[in-house]
Amino acid sequence: MTESWLDAVKWNSDGLVPAIAQEAGTGKVLTLAWMNREALAATAKEGRAVYWSRSRRKLWRKGEESGHVQLIRDIRLDCDNDAVLLLVEQRGGIACHTGRERCFFQQLQDGRWVEVEPVLKSEQEIYGKK
Amino acid sequence: MTESWLDAVKWNSDGLVPAIAQEAGTGKVLTLAWMNREALAATAKEGRAVYWSRSRRKLWRKGEESGHVQLIRDIRLDCDNDAVLLLVEQRGGIACHTGRERCFFQQLQDGRWVEVEPVLKSEQEIYGKK
Repeated sequence: MTESWLDAVKWNSDGLVPAIAQEAGTGKVLTLAWMNREALAATAKEGRAVYWSRSRRKLWRKGEESGHVQLIRDIRLDCDNDAVLLLVEQRGGIACHTGRERCFFQQLQDGRWVEVEPVLKSEQEIYGKK
Repeated sequence: MTESWLDAVKWNSDGLVPAIAQEAGTGKVLTLAWMNREALAATAKEGRAVYWSRSRRKLWRKGEESGHVQLIRDIRLDCDNDAVLLLVEQRGGIACHTGRERCFFQQLQDGRWVEVEPVLKSEQEIYGKK
């Protein structure tokens, strides 16, 4: 079976596209992560966000360690076919590895970045002692 | 004067970061575009979204031709310092060059991309006859 919808995506020179995750309930933009072809295929098939970890160089089933799974409600592609938007249900209410609701917690204020969103759970609490 | 907030951003090997524009009123994710250092500086200074056009290889003051300016309400940086989120007021209610409200109008449905959002204004109407 061909997967022509995957062929329609314009993968960059590293074989990736940026994927935005937006919380379906609150509308908040949670994260920007990256997907390769396999990650996007798995996301659609499994109904949960699967990304490509550029640092670890492997598939990353969001929430696999933390339990903070992103359940898929909608998958969109933009006009240029080179960016993906996911509407998700964020399990645990925490998308960021820092224990915040989302990754976009630094706000530009008078020429500096200020952290404006609270840590809801410590990294130790999320990932356990190591 | 130093611009240390710009130094904090992790620009990629092309000197760019992805920038998500979200409509402040509706919460809809409108576009994903790219910024270089100059574009992000101009965005903050001018209070309107300024991107780097990768195809035209120049600064792109969003709306310069169409009038569909994005006025800045908030600028956020993510936990890894490599993605930007803008909260904007979308002038004209149209963010996409195709004349749609936003660029993410293709929805994945049973293994194919389906256009699910209407064209509000023709490209000819937006950009004029050429």
